Amino acid sequence: MVLGHEGAGIVVEVGEGVTSVGPGDHVIPLYTAECGKCDFCLSGKTNLCVAVRETQGKGLMPDGTTRFSYNGQPLYHYMGCSTFSEYTVVAEVSLAKINPEANPEHVCLLGCGVTTGIGAVHNTAKVQPGDLVAVFGLGGIGLAAIQGARQAKAGRIIAIDTNPSKFELARQFGATECFNPEDHDKPIQQVLIEMSGWGIDHTFECIGNVHVMRAALESAHRGWGQSIVIGVAGAGEEISTRPFQLVTGRVWKGSAFGGVKGRTQLPGMVEDAMRGDIDLAPFVTHTMGLEQINEAFALMHEG
Amino acid sequence: MVLGHEGAGIVVEVGEGVTSVGPGDHVIPLYTAECGKCDFCLSGKTNLCVAVRETQGKGLMPDGTTRFSYNGQPLYHYMGCSTFSEYTVVAEVSLAKINPEANPEHVCLLGCGVTTGIGAVHNTAKVQPGDLVAVFGLGGIGLAAIQGARQAKAGRIIAIDTNPSKFELARQFGATECFNPEDHDKPIQQVLIEMSGWGIDHTFECIGNVHVMRAALESAHRGWGQSIVIGVAGAGEEISTRPFQLVTGRVWKGSAFGGVKGRTQLPGMVEDAMRGDIDLAPFVTHTMGLEQINEAFALMHEG
Repeated sequence: MVLGHEGAGIVVEVGEGVTSVGPGDHVIPLYTAECGKCDFCLSGKTNLCVAVRETQGKGLMPDGTTRFSYNGQPLYHYMGCSTFSEYTVVAEVSLAKINPEANPEHVCLLGCGVTTGIGAVHNTAKVQPGDLVAVFGLGGIGLAAIQGARQAKAGRIIAIDTNPSKFELARQFGATECFNPEDHDKPIQQVLIEMSGWGIDHTFECIGNVHVMRAALESAHRGWGQSIVIGVAGAGEEISTRPFQLVTGRVWKGSAFGGVKGRTQLPGMVEDAMRGDIDLAPFVTHTMGLEQINEAFALMHEG
Repeated sequence: MVLGHEGAGIVVEVGEGVTSVGPGDHVIPLYTAECGKCDFCLSGKTNLCVAVRETQGKGLMPDGTTRFSYNGQPLYHYMGCSTFSEYTVVAEVSLAKINPEANPEHVCLLGCGVTTGIGAVHNTAKVQPGDLVAVFGLGGIGLAAIQGARQAKAGRIIAIDTNPSKFELARQFGATECFNPEDHDKPIQQVLIEMSGWGIDHTFECIGNVHVMRAALESAHRGWGQSIVIGVAGAGEEISTRPFQLVTGRVWKGSAFGGVKGRTQLPGMVEDAMRGDIDLAPFVTHTMGLEQINEAFALMHEG
């Protein structure tokens, strides 16, 4: 299959019946489509459109075909995007049309990670001015969640990572405090509860570690605190806690693509980035061509 | 200690400084107090008042004393109520003043179980007209949740129990369908997802069984379904699920005393019961004196 799900590009041509985008339009491909017509899109409660879900999960276009091949052998699509390619084919409902003045090397990051972190703060948690926020894990999604909390005017933004080299960027993006759990003898949830009195209003797990997911839930404020699972755990892994944590008012939620409706909301986030209200440049540590993709992967795994 | 937390009574005398109730007032004791002044009461987000929490947890009055004794030995209070007694002493913030015309042998049930079930539907889940509801466990709390769902004009109310003798009362209270999980080869969450398409809008666990808590969560609708833990699990027991369940939009919550603020909201629920909008009479299967309390307990455990 052709991998890649975060990108930006320009429409070269459109198929029959496509009306919302045309050649020359600047776009971001959406791994979470928005058809505007299914029960999910119409519910007003979720961004999890199901229009192309089934075929997308099989690596196919909505008509059941694949549009890639290599030496005559068909190749599958990936997450409805396949952005590790000079050219790709996506469904109309899987494209957000954006401002053509936007820098594609920056706003491509809004195709997943940054949007996921920022959107989880606004759409899933609905952080309010003055609220206390804790972000577990300072990779791209966690750092984006910090930017979202800063936009939402959170009162305190606590950044948590075992790698303190992340703290400078976290502070630059809006963190008011940084914590390394390894600096404490007690479990991090106990540290956070003690420093806050009754816990944190909104916690975000941005790693994909089921133990951290538990810690994030158990750090939440008695009575109303909520914890948002954003990270993707390993296959078969499970989260657990004592149900008393929920009965005493904590809420466990998750977020996919930050609850953002791609075609409706993403163009506005591109404008936010162009205006400087979302800071994307610091996320770009390397710029490499597609022919260097294997080197890029190796660099990424070095961390 | 003197047990009992569900009751109704008449104020005999009040201590110094008590102004909100006086001799002759009809009251329901509250194991969840409402002081109106603590951060929790003032938050507008929870009913979990902390005014007397610490001393109540120790079986003491807010001043650190106990007001019960037996043969000169002090006895502890229980849950701030101690209703298995002809006379008890409770904090002013732990009393809801109710309509004196209400039948105490019925409205005593609003001191915990019935309020918990009904309140979870309105305050915690906020069920809306037309919503799909499933109630797991048809004891007092589950049957009350069904009444709450009927009040909220839920579209379908699915009652679930392994004891089909509960189904008649569930239907009388508003259940539109009754399910016995033992009638199905598949796990109940799979049955519910298949019969509903994408799952249930609101599910309620009214047993205290951590496996049922998981089934209830996993029966919830993709994108927005929520599951409310009401039952109290055994000490040390844990709930678990795959985090993917949350990331795809399900929400795991809990409810204590149905999210009801006792002094503010309970008097209105007493009026609802007097008007017939909450049906309490069918919950009263036996009426026995305090001297028969051990027989009553034995009967209860027979089910």
